[in-house]
Amino acid sequence: MYRSHSCGELNASHINTEVTLAGWVQKSRDKGFMIWVDLRDRYGITQLIFDEERTPKEMMEKAKSLGREFVIQVTGTVIERESKNQNMATGVIEVLVSKLEILNKAKLPPFTIENETDGGEDIRMKYRYLDIRRNPVKDSLIFRHKVAMEVRKYLSDQAFIEVETPYLIKSTPEGARDFVVPSRMNEGQFYALPQSPQTFKQLLMVGGMDKYFQIVKCFRDEDLRADRQPEFTQIDCEMAFVEQEDILTIFEGLTRHLLKEIHNLEVAKFPRMLFDDAMRLYGNDKPDIRFGMEFGELNAVTQHKDFGVFNSAELVVGIAVPGGNAYTRKEIDKLIDWVKRPQVGALGMIYCRVNEDGTFKSSVDKFYDQEDLAKWAATTGAKAGDLICVLSGETNKVRAQMSALRMELAERLGLRDPKVFAPLWVIDFPLLELDEETGNYHAMHHPFTSPKPGQMELLETDPGAVKANAYDLVLNGNEIGGGSIRIHDKQIQATMLKHLGFSEEEAKAQFGFLMDAFEYGAPPHGGLAFGLDRLVAILGGQETIRDFIAFPKNNSGRDVMIDAPAALDNEQLKELNIQLAVQK
Amino acid sequence: MYRSHSCGELNASHINTEVTLAGWVQKSRDKGFMIWVDLRDRYGITQLIFDEERTPKEMMEKAKSLGREFVIQVTGTVIERESKNQNMATGVIEVLVSKLEILNKAKLPPFTIENETDGGEDIRMKYRYLDIRRNPVKDSLIFRHKVAMEVRKYLSDQAFIEVETPYLIKSTPEGARDFVVPSRMNEGQFYALPQSPQTFKQLLMVGGMDKYFQIVKCFRDEDLRADRQPEFTQIDCEMAFVEQEDILTIFEGLTRHLLKEIHNLEVAKFPRMLFDDAMRLYGNDKPDIRFGMEFGELNAVTQHKDFGVFNSAELVVGIAVPGGNAYTRKEIDKLIDWVKRPQVGALGMIYCRVNEDGTFKSSVDKFYDQEDLAKWAATTGAKAGDLICVLSGETNKVRAQMSALRMELAERLGLRDPKVFAPLWVIDFPLLELDEETGNYHAMHHPFTSPKPGQMELLETDPGAVKANAYDLVLNGNEIGGGSIRIHDKQIQATMLKHLGFSEEEAKAQFGFLMDAFEYGAPPHGGLAFGLDRLVAILGGQETIRDFIAFPKNNSGRDVMIDAPAALDNEQLKELNIQLAVQK
Repeated sequence: MYRSHSCGELNASHINTEVTLAGWVQKSRDKGFMIWVDLRDRYGITQLIFDEERTPKEMMEKAKSLGREFVIQVTGTVIERESKNQNMATGVIEVLVSKLEILNKAKLPPFTIENETDGGEDIRMKYRYLDIRRNPVKDSLIFRHKVAMEVRKYLSDQAFIEVETPYLIKSTPEGARDFVVPSRMNEGQFYALPQSPQTFKQLLMVGGMDKYFQIVKCFRDEDLRADRQPEFTQIDCEMAFVEQEDILTIFEGLTRHLLKEIHNLEVAKFPRMLFDDAMRLYGNDKPDIRFGMEFGELNAVTQHKDFGVFNSAELVVGIAVPGGNAYTRKEIDKLIDWVKRPQVGALGMIYCRVNEDGTFKSSVDKFYDQEDLAKWAATTGAKAGDLICVLSGETNKVRAQMSALRMELAERLGLRDPKVFAPLWVIDFPLLELDEETGNYHAMHHPFTSPKPGQMELLETDPGAVKANAYDLVLNGNEIGGGSIRIHDKQIQATMLKHLGFSEEEAKAQFGFLMDAFEYGAPPHGGLAFGLDRLVAILGGQETIRDFIAFPKNNSGRDVMIDAPAALDNEQLKELNIQLAVQK
Repeated sequence: MYRSHSCGELNASHINTEVTLAGWVQKSRDKGFMIWVDLRDRYGITQLIFDEERTPKEMMEKAKSLGREFVIQVTGTVIERESKNQNMATGVIEVLVSKLEILNKAKLPPFTIENETDGGEDIRMKYRYLDIRRNPVKDSLIFRHKVAMEVRKYLSDQAFIEVETPYLIKSTPEGARDFVVPSRMNEGQFYALPQSPQTFKQLLMVGGMDKYFQIVKCFRDEDLRADRQPEFTQIDCEMAFVEQEDILTIFEGLTRHLLKEIHNLEVAKFPRMLFDDAMRLYGNDKPDIRFGMEFGELNAVTQHKDFGVFNSAELVVGIAVPGGNAYTRKEIDKLIDWVKRPQVGALGMIYCRVNEDGTFKSSVDKFYDQEDLAKWAATTGAKAGDLICVLSGETNKVRAQMSALRMELAERLGLRDPKVFAPLWVIDFPLLELDEETGNYHAMHHPFTSPKPGQMELLETDPGAVKANAYDLVLNGNEIGGGSIRIHDKQIQATMLKHLGFSEEEAKAQFGFLMDAFEYGAPPHGGLAFGLDRLVAILGGQETIRDFIAFPKNNSGRDVMIDAPAALDNEQLKELNIQLAVQK
């Protein structure tokens, strides 16, 4: 027993009791005749006191020697503090130390172990074990645990069974790149790490498991972008004998449970939005609906005049910026520069002020009169005092640009309140997505997604128009989960794979086991997966996932703390029957 | 909504209500004018009835067409059964079907989906999704989920935080072989999959996480023996500011909680046994203490006579077989053959009958008189009616042989009751183990285990005698977990690695990050890991783990269902900067 109490629990009720504590020296103040030490552990901070009058000289010397992050054990008496700190759980007491033991010394840490640290990203990654001592990281990891436990409790209570699926599986060239694992015992062959347990959870449905879930690591060998990790965690779920409605109900319930348990928030039934509407109204399949600023499509009210830019545009679209009429000309010019940045890519922006008296002043007054502009205002929902921003061009591009502008303005206007949670189902996703580079269609969700009933024929004639029983759960502008009703018929699956460009042989080699399984009594089934890393970050009111991952990798996929990946010795390669490729 | 109820819940209270069910056809009985179908889902079986009088002709025909494992949906009225089956949850009712839909047909399964199946191991592995439909497998997976949930609940309630550690880490040549993962982004370098999260959990302790756990997949590229899997699951734990006693208390609590929640068993405080005593009394570091038959060392009472075999033996050891005097001469000869099998390897066996009148009759009466044999009986605890079996030879070998004999006899005597749970802590393991082939010592637990206080010096003079703060939890003769107090001092860790044959450079390259971490304020810490696969098997009263793993691999490390591992195409290898080794 190194301690009788943690550093977070002593209060007035403990005064005059003897306690033993252990932890890290957060800081010390040495007034010569008196030394205070803040002792820290996971649970809090307790102030220790040593003073000339009551502390033996030798111990005073030892106390003076304590450096930051030393690990110590103390025994002492809880006493009332003279200057109390009511903001601190233990702020009423301090411990007068009678015994001090240094359990381990510490070198000066390379950055301060404080909520706000002076350490940059790189050094904190290298010394992640020190970074974890800081409250923001420590609390994020504890928060993640709490969320994961609540997920498990909720799903277990709903009769879901957590089943572990294998990590050493088979590579499938569909989708992102696999991480692979050479097999020593099966010469020349490789396992792959799962990008998701998709086929296994479907086989569990064929196996009658009925309701499956798993919180599981998945792997994608992608070129990393900021906030992407080569290994990430999914809440993976699947249900048999269900329609889309059943799945939405369960996982709306899960999300509502989390918001209640974590934030004590009651959220009404989640709104649902068609994919097509999300694109039309927000230019985005994961709209942030914490605020309005919906798109108004202005083609009908702009394309009858002589303004060539609009007349030649596939889409003219505007949004009303609340109170935006207060912007100076200079501010508006800056906004125009912002949309013209390469990251956004607009060629320009037309705007229209809505004055307090209800009159309009636009940057294209030459072409549009007050009556025209009143229609712009009506279409975008602009009120007196607002600013209407208008972009135009090719539909997909202009939607993306306007979506970026909408998010940027909302950020500036403080409309993206991290304490507000606005979940939304986006449904009826297209089955296929056109790869603009190759001209081929690929599965928008994955090749196992079922087209909507009666749309199989459309696959032949207008593949891009086929809608799927596929849905995403969106929270505050982030996709936190997605899923679909699956195909459970061998013939339909074969047709689907054919449309995705698989030859019959490839389909059999890759997914033969699944299609075989469909012949032995496969029930209708569907499911979804939540991204746990992002879910906890958003529930925690953060934009980046890194603090919610204990040991993240950097943007080159490296763990800079342990220095992995690393070279192998030749002996090991030889055993695995592989060698490094000859340098070109 | 495919169903209003599951197939396991309808009872007398539902009579006269209309229900919709969905599931698999378990079997059907066709009497011509009447057809009964057993409809199965995860939750149970409900009997459906179709009959000439009440069922339309067309539906009768459809019902007749149903094959085993067809997936169907029915609507009907719950009615009272004529011949009730009180052994079945739904045995009082049946459903008179008014609507029948075939959701999916099924080919005849390659083995029967019954508790006792006609399918061999291989075919059941290939069609694992069908095997999972069978109650023994399905129930095992549900049982595993229940155990895992209880583990998580208990540890969370004890303030443990589940932290996910990375899967893509660095290869360490210590211990078993690693599975490795070529890095595409870091040419010529490899990740390794963790054999355990050992170093990461220690870093979490340095990071102040205080109490960590994780239910986590681990990987070992070993030549597989029966009941070993290349990927397996651990309940991994670590605590800071603890001594051995604190850890034993927590995990004894966990095990007691599981026995209570799972089997409603109350188990008293777990006995503890020194490693040395376990070896002396049971010839084994994981003794099954559900029964006695402790070893009696007979050197002192056998080596004063002319029996050369015993006189030259390092160890003479006996056990008393309860009631063994009833064995015929032939049976004893068979037993002697059994210990001489190469798997056991004894050269022979001496025995001594203890007659009902208290006299003795041994196979070495020429050398030992009644008084001698009485001492054998006293030492082995043999009573009237028992048989004393005696083996002799080199200590380690003869202990292993006698342990095998003890377990075999207990099995035959029915003393290994799967419903009885006898946990045991084995403590004070040796720090090092001599590799008889190479003559080198290696870490018995792992290189991070702390020697007992004051034994560092012994490392130089008598390494094999150094004991560690290392402990195993044994349940019914199986090691279900093990752990140790760790080194938390850089210098001691460096000395330890040196003794294990690491050069200073190797130590730094492999474990430099951990030893660096020890310099920044590492607390005393320790932990343990339970093997979840084995734990659930034993709690489930089974000897083999395979039914408790959804998708196990076979003894060649293959998943025969998905046919993995498999060859990669050259494009993929090229991207990973590797190639297959040139054939020798």
